Amino acid sequence: MKNRGILIVLSGPSGTGKDSILRELKNLRSDFEISVSCTTRKPRVGEIDGKDYYFLTKDEFKQKVDAGDMLEWATFCGNYYGTPKHELEDRLDAGLNIILEIEVNGAEQVIRNSSEAVSIFVLPPSVRVLKERLKNRGLDSEEAIEMRTKEAEREIALAENYDYVVVNDDLKECASDISKIIDSEKLRIIHRKNIIKEVLKNERVVSR
Amino acid sequence: MKNRGILIVLSGPSGTGKDSILRELKNLRSDFEISVSCTTRKPRVGEIDGKDYYFLTKDEFKQKVDAGDMLEWATFCGNYYGTPKHELEDRLDAGLNIILEIEVNGAEQVIRNSSEAVSIFVLPPSVRVLKERLKNRGLDSEEAIEMRTKEAEREIALAENYDYVVVNDDLKECASDISKIIDSEKLRIIHRKNIIKEVLKNERVVSR
Repeated sequence: MKNRGILIVLSGPSGTGKDSILRELKNLRSDFEISVSCTTRKPRVGEIDGKDYYFLTKDEFKQKVDAGDMLEWATFCGNYYGTPKHELEDRLDAGLNIILEIEVNGAEQVIRNSSEAVSIFVLPPSVRVLKERLKNRGLDSEEAIEMRTKEAEREIALAENYDYVVVNDDLKECASDISKIIDSEKLRIIHRKNIIKEVLKNERVVSR
Repeated sequence: MKNRGILIVLSGPSGTGKDSILRELKNLRSDFEISVSCTTRKPRVGEIDGKDYYFLTKDEFKQKVDAGDMLEWATFCGNYYGTPKHELEDRLDAGLNIILEIEVNGAEQVIRNSSEAVSIFVLPPSVRVLKERLKNRGLDSEEAIEMRTKEAEREIALAENYDYVVVNDDLKECASDISKIIDSEKLRIIHRKNIIKEVLKNERVVSR
């Protein structure tokens, strides 16, 4: 029997580089999938249904919420975003490791609703560095940057609810830290229920 | 303020290679110390007090037990063996990571008595392989090997009480697994209490 995969929640303030970290992690290992969210916003040019998002109508989305099939969900700019539970369950059962990259409010819901989720908070090296990064990105007005920084401070205080914290100072190092967390979590007894029986039954087992 | 070190309990049946694993781990990293036990047995030639063991009289040992200063203890062949609590506490407070390499009964006591201990059980690839290893070592009679194998089976069933299980099939891989567990545990929020405050106070923090 396959061991159930590991569910990882990766969160942190906007601008801490979660997307870049996941791209870097893909260079280090391929034994994980990134969960695809549902949204009611219109697809942008080039976006593929089932790859970038599952694009749903508002009615379809609400039905899923009512059926208890959203692990977490939120509204943003008038649209719904959420993580479908059903598909996630099937993939974990198949032994796949899944990473949910979500914003802090969604992550709080998953931490509350899932006992198995391994939560990782990405910290910037300091709030000042985060602010500089937002400035250098050149996407936001000064006012928006002030707002984002304030929001980041509020979110960073919530990091203590997570299992792990990593710092995105050096991107490669940060991805390597997350990779080690995954390796280590795979060695947990809760993910290796059958190994004791196998050793006793003289089925030769291997480390990973 | 220094973060408190990590307390690791490494256990498993006799013959699974715990000593060799720790020697290999020393080649991989130097940021840990191996806890020194107390014993009432006489020092053997070349053994150094405070390095191999703390050699105590039976009265001294019993006083420590009565004072609640043994994290775990047991008798073996008429002698007492145990882990002194006081010194361990001081070293952990100083930020040192400590590995307790102890037999399964002692480990059970530590897992029960310490909420912070991270417990790792070393499995052989199979009971049959363990038996072969004991034979090849040439130290025990056939009868003793049978007894040790039976005991190992009893102990392996207790692995489910541990946080992690590793398999000593390939020594280097096994040591590397333990090293990853240490890295990963160091990233836990419980070992990085100050990091959130530091990031908010704009003290630039690093990943590890």
